[in-house]
Amino acid sequence: MKKHLTQLIESKAFEWGIVAVIVINAIVLGLEITPRAAALMPFFSVIDKVAFFVFIAELVLKLFVYRTDYFKKGWNIFDFVIVLLTALPYLNIATLGNLTILRALRILRALRLMSVVPAFRQVIGTLAYSLSGVGAVGSVLFIAMYISSVLAAKLFGDIAPENFGTLGASLLSMFTIMTVEGWREIVDPVAKEFAFAYPFFVFYILGCAFVLFNLLITVLVSASEKQHREEILREEAATEAIEAKIEELQKTLNEYLSKKG
Amino acid sequence: MKKHLTQLIESKAFEWGIVAVIVINAIVLGLEITPRAAALMPFFSVIDKVAFFVFIAELVLKLFVYRTDYFKKGWNIFDFVIVLLTALPYLNIATLGNLTILRALRILRALRLMSVVPAFRQVIGTLAYSLSGVGAVGSVLFIAMYISSVLAAKLFGDIAPENFGTLGASLLSMFTIMTVEGWREIVDPVAKEFAFAYPFFVFYILGCAFVLFNLLITVLVSASEKQHREEILREEAATEAIEAKIEELQKTLNEYLSKKG
Amino acid sequence: MKKHLTQLIESKAFEWGIVAVIVINAIVLGLEITPRAAALMPFFSVIDKVAFFVFIAELVLKLFVYRTDYFKKGWNIFDFVIVLLTALPYLNIATLGNLTILRALRILRALRLMSVVPAFRQVIGTLAYSLSGVGAVGSVLFIAMYISSVLAAKLFGDIAPENFGTLGASLLSMFTIMTVEGWREIVDPVAKEFAFAYPFFVFYILGCAFVLFNLLITVLVSASEKQHREEILREEAATEAIEAKIEELQKTLNEYLSKKG
Amino acid sequence: MKKHLTQLIESKAFEWGIVAVIVINAIVLGLEITPRAAALMPFFSVIDKVAFFVFIAELVLKLFVYRTDYFKKGWNIFDFVIVLLTALPYLNIATLGNLTILRALRILRALRLMSVVPAFRQVIGTLAYSLSGVGAVGSVLFIAMYISSVLAAKLFGDIAPENFGTLGASLLSMFTIMTVEGWREIVDPVAKEFAFAYPFFVFYILGCAFVLFNLLITVLVSASEKQHREEILREEAATEAIEAKIEELQKTLNEYLSKKG
Repeated sequence: MKKHLTQLIESKAFEWGIVAVIVINAIVLGLEITPRAAALMPFFSVIDKVAFFVFIAELVLKLFVYRTDYFKKGWNIFDFVIVLLTALPYLNIATLGNLTILRALRILRALRLMSVVPAFRQVIGTLAYSLSGVGAVGSVLFIAMYISSVLAAKLFGDIAPENFGTLGASLLSMFTIMTVEGWREIVDPVAKEFAFAYPFFVFYILGCAFVLFNLLITVLVSASEKQHREEILREEAATEAIEAKIEELQKTLNEYLSKKG
Repeated sequence: MKKHLTQLIESKAFEWGIVAVIVINAIVLGLEITPRAAALMPFFSVIDKVAFFVFIAELVLKLFVYRTDYFKKGWNIFDFVIVLLTALPYLNIATLGNLTILRALRILRALRLMSVVPAFRQVIGTLAYSLSGVGAVGSVLFIAMYISSVLAAKLFGDIAPENFGTLGASLLSMFTIMTVEGWREIVDPVAKEFAFAYPFFVFYILGCAFVLFNLLITVLVSASEKQHREEILREEAATEAIEAKIEELQKTLNEYLSKKG
Repeated sequence: MKKHLTQLIESKAFEWGIVAVIVINAIVLGLEITPRAAALMPFFSVIDKVAFFVFIAELVLKLFVYRTDYFKKGWNIFDFVIVLLTALPYLNIATLGNLTILRALRILRALRLMSVVPAFRQVIGTLAYSLSGVGAVGSVLFIAMYISSVLAAKLFGDIAPENFGTLGASLLSMFTIMTVEGWREIVDPVAKEFAFAYPFFVFYILGCAFVLFNLLITVLVSASEKQHREEILREEAATEAIEAKIEELQKTLNEYLSKKG
Repeated sequence: MKKHLTQLIESKAFEWGIVAVIVINAIVLGLEITPRAAALMPFFSVIDKVAFFVFIAELVLKLFVYRTDYFKKGWNIFDFVIVLLTALPYLNIATLGNLTILRALRILRALRLMSVVPAFRQVIGTLAYSLSGVGAVGSVLFIAMYISSVLAAKLFGDIAPENFGTLGASLLSMFTIMTVEGWREIVDPVAKEFAFAYPFFVFYILGCAFVLFNLLITVLVSASEKQHREEILREEAATEAIEAKIEELQKTLNEYLSKKG
């Protein structure tokens, strides 16, 4: 029986079934907040519970079949956490306030699409890989933002307390200025008092843009690295193939000469 | 006669004539909404009808010459649909309300430039190719936006109903935040109630920007792929040419030795 | 004497002298609009006239030395036009209204930096080269914008006449929406009447962004093309060198065998 | 003893200790502007002074060990300037007004993370390298902005004095328009008077975007240059290895023939 279950779990049909349940569940959770679909609410509630049951059943089935091997794959742990986390709202142990948030978190089940669909799994893998490559550049950018924020808070905190009054407000303002959205509205009141505020923020914007340029390039270079390595291997193989043929020739000649000599 | 027609249709002059009619028609349709050119309206109307007649004549001619072969090319089907769709306003079968929209759609004829001018056809081909390459990354981005929208709607729907009250409003708000345009105006009212709204939306912006970065890189890598494949072929050809020459040498030597041996 | 003049004109010192005059002239023209430097106005006027005299003298000198050869270089024609154009305000033939604009155009002399400094000349060359490469993609983008503008004007012109009332207003609005700046302020009033306005403009933004992505990539690929062609040449040279050596071997062997045979 | 000190200074533990002090100092300086942490202010003051003492001690130690060799490394000079600059607020020689700014500058110590952590040092190196590569393109962009600013000031200064009244205001406006943030608010009042203002600023935005595109590409090409040069070296090595093997063969053959001949 276990063998049959394994076949079932690993079949394409099972995978697509789970995908369908995830998609339907995600659409239903979206429709729940569409006023025009309010009349269908009880129907949506039933579908959501069925979907929940399917996810629990899938989890139990996989745990039964794979046992502890189940937890050896990162994506399985991801699924496990998602399913258990979104199971919480059905237990009445939480307070009402938390329950709203917990119920809202049910939509996180749609994240399971990332683990179930191979194409998405690959995209997430690529994203994670390029994220790991930008760690250093990202940290430098964050440190620069932190220093600028503290500096701005100490210098401009008294003039514009709503934007630079606290560390949090200042960090948010500096992030907003980096996105360029409404930066003049933040900078103008400060610049009325401090003449050097304009050059300060203009250099900040240019600096952030330049670091982001380089971050893009770092991602790009690390993306082409794999292609590059494959090329090196291919070229080395070609060189070796040619050398092998020449060595064979040399050997033929040497053998003949030594026989003769 | 059919042979002469084929020659006519496939001549450069015919192609440029059609391009000229499309461009003149597009300019006239644009001038129709320029108040200063209102006096010329009857004149524009005549030109538009002449252009329409030219397109119908071209279509009939091509159908007569190529018969069913006409529909074997994708661009021909594109032309066919455009011409028929923009023929609708001249038939008085539609209601008045629709007629305004149908008349507006006449400008879609200018899209025929894409199918008629070879350089544009190539650009569209490149765009379609790179679009096909970003399908998976684009889907991941859309799923992330959908999950964020549902989450934001459930959490912030009561505080800011105009931005997060319905699924549609929430999706639009999340798209607007992704474009960074006026994001503080959307986020600030929410953040007054929920302290965690700022980190939520800042991570959303950073996440979207990072996925878009990777989308750009995916397009770029797929664009360089073709160049790359050509290079592989060229290198393989070079390697094979060298190997063939060495093998010839080996053969000469072997023949001599076997003759002698 | 002409030989001495040629040496003078082509000397580094002369070049740097001209650069200095251009830079000083540009700074002075900038200071003219700085209220704090108003007292120095008569002084600035003298400097401007001296700079003008230097440019005229340089032009006369070069024309005397190179004669008609002067006009064989594109950059010389550029210099010639700039100097003559910015000479106009000193002639009192223009009406007063034009004179303000003509006087303002004197700053265009700073553009001569592009023609005089070799590093800038190269940058302009690169920009022109990559501009020529994006012609087709840029045209497709412009046609798409034009079609969208006419469509938007015909559909939304009555609801939002200030943004879509005329072809010009509509083109400007569509360009503004492409820059994403304040797009919600333009789209929101329209969307109150037409439910499909949001998807229309969201697709427009996504489409423009995607074409711009591809434009960036086209520039990039055309930039790497030169590097790529050099690589092909180098590889072909390497392959040929190896083949030549093998052929020499084959020849040695053949000669020996034919002598023996 | 000096040898022991050298070992101490160059040990990983010492490096990480300094990193820890820098990070703690930066966090404390950030917390100083967080109202909720106001009660801990005296505690923060002590930590700041301890950190300052550690930096001074580190500097003295390194100067004692390396003597004048200390100043041969650029990063050491960077550290030296930072430590001395942020030592100023502890001396009571400055006036009160300056003291606020000097005290604010203490956060610049966090910049020492860039010099102490090797990964960050490398990022700064990459940034500096790509910055050096964009000098010419950046200068062309700045000259274009300067010319546009002077032109806009002279043409539009009377209509919109708050945005184009002075050279400084005009430069700031043109920079703001380049960031696209609120460009319509700047351009609209001007365009009411001058019909050609819209095309002027639209071309300005397109031009800036295009130059920035090319700047990105310049950074990218210079980033791939190193990889490219390595590839050339590797290919040349492969070609030479093959040629050496063929030459060896030719030599064997030649020796045999000359012996025989």
